[in-house]
Amino acid sequence: MFKTRVTEFLGINYPIIQGGMMWVSRAELVAAVSNAGGLGILSAFTFSNTKDLAAEIEKTRGLTDKPFGVNITLMPTFRPVDIDGYIDTVIDSGVRIVETAGRSPEPYMERLKSAGVKVIHKCTAVRFARTAQRIGCDAVSIDGFECAGHPGEEDVTSLVLIPLTVDAVEIPVIASGGFGDGRGLVAALALGAEAVNMGTRFMATKEAPAHLRVKELLISSSERDTVLLLRSFRNTMRMLRNATAGKVLELERQGSDIHQLEKLISGKAGLGLLESGDVDNGLISVGQVVGLIHDIPTVKELIESIIKEAEEVASNLAGAGVFKPRRLTDVTE
Amino acid sequence: MFKTRVTEFLGINYPIIQGGMMWVSRAELVAAVSNAGGLGILSAFTFSNTKDLAAEIEKTRGLTDKPFGVNITLMPTFRPVDIDGYIDTVIDSGVRIVETAGRSPEPYMERLKSAGVKVIHKCTAVRFARTAQRIGCDAVSIDGFECAGHPGEEDVTSLVLIPLTVDAVEIPVIASGGFGDGRGLVAALALGAEAVNMGTRFMATKEAPAHLRVKELLISSSERDTVLLLRSFRNTMRMLRNATAGKVLELERQGSDIHQLEKLISGKAGLGLLESGDVDNGLISVGQVVGLIHDIPTVKELIESIIKEAEEVASNLAGAGVFKPRRLTDVTE
Repeated sequence: MFKTRVTEFLGINYPIIQGGMMWVSRAELVAAVSNAGGLGILSAFTFSNTKDLAAEIEKTRGLTDKPFGVNITLMPTFRPVDIDGYIDTVIDSGVRIVETAGRSPEPYMERLKSAGVKVIHKCTAVRFARTAQRIGCDAVSIDGFECAGHPGEEDVTSLVLIPLTVDAVEIPVIASGGFGDGRGLVAALALGAEAVNMGTRFMATKEAPAHLRVKELLISSSERDTVLLLRSFRNTMRMLRNATAGKVLELERQGSDIHQLEKLISGKAGLGLLESGDVDNGLISVGQVVGLIHDIPTVKELIESIIKEAEEVASNLAGAGVFKPRRLTDVTE
Repeated sequence: MFKTRVTEFLGINYPIIQGGMMWVSRAELVAAVSNAGGLGILSAFTFSNTKDLAAEIEKTRGLTDKPFGVNITLMPTFRPVDIDGYIDTVIDSGVRIVETAGRSPEPYMERLKSAGVKVIHKCTAVRFARTAQRIGCDAVSIDGFECAGHPGEEDVTSLVLIPLTVDAVEIPVIASGGFGDGRGLVAALALGAEAVNMGTRFMATKEAPAHLRVKELLISSSERDTVLLLRSFRNTMRMLRNATAGKVLELERQGSDIHQLEKLISGKAGLGLLESGDVDNGLISVGQVVGLIHDIPTVKELIESIIKEAEEVASNLAGAGVFKPRRLTDVTE
C-alpha cells in the first residue's frame, strides 16, 4: 500500500520525506529516516563549508545504506554562500537526490541532471511548480500556508494548493506543510500528492539533534503557538511563539528596518538554542502541525505508526458500513 | 460508502452539507441539495422578517420532501435582529435541523433541544468546538483559515484544525473551508471529519440564485483571488478580490474607523450584486477553494460527481499497486 511514483523514483519504501531543516537535518536524523523506509534529507548550509558537508554526507553513508538527499536552499542568506561549490560537493560525494528551495534551480539543472541527480524543488505556488516541471525537476514539493519556515506571501493552504498543483503539472507532487500523522498522509494522497514532506514532526523524535527542552516545548505547544515574522517585508517566516519571536514582532510593529531585524534574527539563529535548550533565546521554525505532536518517538516508531494508521484509515474509507473516524485515543491505545 | 454518524443523524445519503450563505441559501438551492442526497441549509437572516423566513421554509418544503436545515448566525449584524423570533419561527415551521454560527448557541439550546432540533454549531477554533459539545450540540462544523466569510483571527488551516477537533470532542466533526471536490471529501474523512460543509462550490451551480456573471467570475478566479478585510479590527472577512474589496482594504490601510467601513460594507452587501451581476459593485464571500472551481453544473451533477470521484479515490488508496493520483483531466474525461 502507498507505493507511488515518488517511492519508485527515490527507491524508498514509504511516501514519507524528511524535509531539509537548518541545523536539524544532520546525519543521525537523516540516516534514521532513510533506515526506517522514508527519505532523509541533509541540510547543506547547516555546514559552514563544503568540507564539513562532505564529511556529514560520509557520516550519513556510514549510518545507512539507503538513499538519502541533500537540501540546497537557493535563497538570500545572512551570509554569502558559494552555491556552486556546495553543488559540486553533493555531486562529487555521490548523492543522487537534491531538494532545492527558495529560488528556481534552473541555473544548476544542467549540472545536476547530467550527474544523474534527481531534483525535487520545493515551492509555495502553482506557477513555481509549473516552472519546476518546465526546467526538468523530477518532482515538486508544495508548501502550504501552514508550513514551518517560509510560507510565501499568498497564504494558500495545503488543502487547496495540493490539488491545484496536481492539476497543473504532470510530475509527482509532494505535500508539504501541515503533515504529521497517518490521517494527514491519507489526506495528502487523496488530494493527489504522491508523498508527504514533514519537518516539524521529525524535530520531535529521539534522533533529532535538538535539546530535550526544545522537543518538550513542541509537545506542549498548540496549533496557535506559531507566529509570522517579517510579514511587513514580504519575507514571511513562520516560527514558534517565544520571547525572541515576540521581540522581533514588536520591533517590526515599531517600524524597525529589515537590516536591523535580520541582524537580530541572524544573531538568534543557529545551533545555539537547539544545543542549549534555552528555548526563549532564539528562533525555532515550526509549522501549525506542532499542535498535533504529543510524543517523542524514535524515527522508526514514528514512521511505522504513521503507515499503520494510514493503512487503517484507507481501509476504513474504502470499506462498507458506517465510517469510523480515527482519533488520537485510537493511536495511543 | 461514506455513511457516517452525520449522514445517519441527519437522515441524508451523502456526507455533503451546503452551508448557510447570506442571500444565496434560498429555497431553490437548498431543495436541490437535499433532493440530491446532501443537506441544504437556508440562511435565516437573508429574510428581513420571520414571516418571509416562514414562507421560504414553506417554499422549500414544496420543492423537497428530504431533510433540510436553517442557519442562524448569532453575530452582531449591521441591523438589530430578533433572534428569538427567528428561532421560534424555525421551530414552529417544523424544521428540525439548525446550523448556528458566530457565537455560542447556549442561550437557545434548551428551546432548540426540547423541540427536538438537531444543532450543528459552526466555529473556528478547537476550544469553541469543546464548548459546543458541552452545551449539547449534535455536531460541530469546523471552519479552517481557507474558508469564505469569517475565518476568525487565528489562521489555523483545515488540515490541522480538523484532526485537532476530532481528537478534542466526541461529537461528529464536519469539515468546512477549502472543500469542493471528491478529493477534498476523502481528505476530510481521512482527517476524521464525518461530512464536508461547502459554500463557495455550491455558489457556482445552476440552481444558486446568483447572476451568471457572478458564477463566471468564480470560475475565472484563482486561489489567489480572495482578500481578508477588517483584519485590523479583528473581525476578519474573506471576500473575492474585486473593486469594492480593494476600496475597503485601501480605506482600512488609511486608518478609517470601523463604523465608516461597516457602513460602506453594509451598503455594498445584500442581494444587489447577486441579482444585477455588477460584480465590482459589492462584496462576494468566497473561500480559497474558488481556485478549484471550473464549471457550473447542476447541484445533482455536482454531488454525484463528487461522490463518484471520492469513491474512486478511496478505492485507489486502499488498493494494491502504484497509487494513481486523481487529476482534473480525469474528472472532465
